[in-house]
Amino acid sequence: MIELPGTPQDLHQLIDSMPPANEDARQAARARQAVLTKPAGSLGRMEKIAEWLAAWQGSDAPRAERIQIIVFAANHGIAARGVSAYPSEVTAQMVANFTAGGAAINQLSDWLGASLTVIPLSLESPTGDATQEAAMNVEACLSAWQAGMTALDASADLVCLGEMGIGNTTVAAALSAGLFGGTGADWAGRGTGVDDAGLQRKTEAIDEALACHRDYLGDPLEAMRRIGGREFAAIAGTALAARHGRVPVLLDGFACSAAAATLHAANPAALAHCLVAHNSVEPGHTRLLEKIDQKPLLDFSLRLGEGSGAALAAAMVRAAAVAHNGMATFESAGVSGPAN
Amino acid sequence: MIELPGTPQDLHQLIDSMPPANEDARQAARARQAVLTKPAGSLGRMEKIAEWLAAWQGSDAPRAERIQIIVFAANHGIAARGVSAYPSEVTAQMVANFTAGGAAINQLSDWLGASLTVIPLSLESPTGDATQEAAMNVEACLSAWQAGMTALDASADLVCLGEMGIGNTTVAAALSAGLFGGTGADWAGRGTGVDDAGLQRKTEAIDEALACHRDYLGDPLEAMRRIGGREFAAIAGTALAARHGRVPVLLDGFACSAAAATLHAANPAALAHCLVAHNSVEPGHTRLLEKIDQKPLLDFSLRLGEGSGAALAAAMVRAAAVAHNGMATFESAGVSGPAN
Repeated sequence: MIELPGTPQDLHQLIDSMPPANEDARQAARARQAVLTKPAGSLGRMEKIAEWLAAWQGSDAPRAERIQIIVFAANHGIAARGVSAYPSEVTAQMVANFTAGGAAINQLSDWLGASLTVIPLSLESPTGDATQEAAMNVEACLSAWQAGMTALDASADLVCLGEMGIGNTTVAAALSAGLFGGTGADWAGRGTGVDDAGLQRKTEAIDEALACHRDYLGDPLEAMRRIGGREFAAIAGTALAARHGRVPVLLDGFACSAAAATLHAANPAALAHCLVAHNSVEPGHTRLLEKIDQKPLLDFSLRLGEGSGAALAAAMVRAAAVAHNGMATFESAGVSGPAN
Repeated sequence: MIELPGTPQDLHQLIDSMPPANEDARQAARARQAVLTKPAGSLGRMEKIAEWLAAWQGSDAPRAERIQIIVFAANHGIAARGVSAYPSEVTAQMVANFTAGGAAINQLSDWLGASLTVIPLSLESPTGDATQEAAMNVEACLSAWQAGMTALDASADLVCLGEMGIGNTTVAAALSAGLFGGTGADWAGRGTGVDDAGLQRKTEAIDEALACHRDYLGDPLEAMRRIGGREFAAIAGTALAARHGRVPVLLDGFACSAAAATLHAANPAALAHCLVAHNSVEPGHTRLLEKIDQKPLLDFSLRLGEGSGAALAAAMVRAAAVAHNGMATFESAGVSGPAN
């Protein structure tokens, strides 16, 4: 476990000191892929996933058996601007649904045989409305980062990150714009399903938040503190702790990618241990994926959150590891290689 | 079990008499999706998969627990034209590898908890070289269709189709061209990895096969008999038996899609119970998917065959069913709906 940051400077230090992948393990995994009983490269991205997993686990026999899914929930002052189709009380209601086992992520977690960690972050205290003030003060923001760091099961083979927070696609869009430029119109989408008027309110709220904090967006961590929200800081915190603990990460959709993009903006090598699970319907997600140089694994037109896409993609990562470890080699199976 | 066809006319009759989906079950599944604890439509394609499964299983609580994977193997006279990077003996060697448990599909089948059925089709007797003669006589072709029909476990919730046959991307390309028009250059790809000279031989062989059989391509079944090969007829046979038995089907890559496309060419509604598992690297596959109006589930740059992509996609189908059946409703979970 890394030492928890007590100041924003500590956080910057953790981001600047991220360890690299184990390239020897990646090469060893690649060498094994080349002699397995299949035409070279014919398992395509599954081969690359196995090599990525090997590089971060530091083993040429990588595993994705023990999977942790973490869902962070939070509420947002900006939700009062009418940017979501759902009222803010749905965040707590869905946390209750997670606890009772009734949500999509419960079914997918059971299907996967994963452990599911649900962490509500001060739901009774929404963050400040970022169109008017900073979403979080320094203490609240650090506390959310710490919650993310301590949530990680460092013995997991793979961690899937997800979130629940009414209004948080607005936050994701504003944060993305704050980190990478552009306006509300560039980054806003319909989220859980707002109508045209809701989309207009959302676009305006993003532009107001950007205007309110425009002098402070040069520091990605400060941009996140000001735009929000708690689940974003927590997701970034888990991804950061996972990097130091060499646990590979699957990011779910737009909100998770925006949270992780904060690390990328601070250190372009920061997300090498992360894969984005799927391409969300949310148009800002596609734009963001280009900025953080990630190609999503799946494309199922999901826009649910909760880590649902990450759980689906985790099965593909497990399959990649299983094929990598279990297949025979040309030599062991007595199969002829290419004719010339 | 349907009655096995004794003549090509019997086959045509089975293709013309395919039963439709159960639209009541589809509607019931759709109605359930609308009240589950998620924004309407937010599980995207996963919702559509659950509805598709419901429609073919005739149940609003569809399952993908019992999964059968069938891999048909065959050899091809056209392989003597130097169209593959691998010698024809690899087909039998890989069948031995399937039996010994060393291939990719063995690992994926175990991972999925599926049953794996491997059916070698007269490997010692390659089909005729389709550039010179019909690949199969009427008896051999019907026998391969029958092998496909009898391979189906009619109690499976889902069947995954795959193949192994050195030279069969050339056959898939030629068959696709025979069914939908175009030339060797339009449909040929590098298969298991031929070089430029191999690709040129492949393109020419396809054009020669098309020229040899050009007067007989109007009947899709006759086109398949002449161009080949045994695994194509068997795959089409399983898909046809599955339709009559209302077992949903996942088609793997280019060869499986080309085999199933024969049914589509004979009856445009023939593949409503089938989904294509993935988008192969093979360029002809993308072209073929447009012709048969299928959007693949995954895109992992696979080009292995063996049913590997179908097995991966089967996990996604299972997840869709699990989420559909297990999730709470807004009412049962006490979660608020949209604000207006």
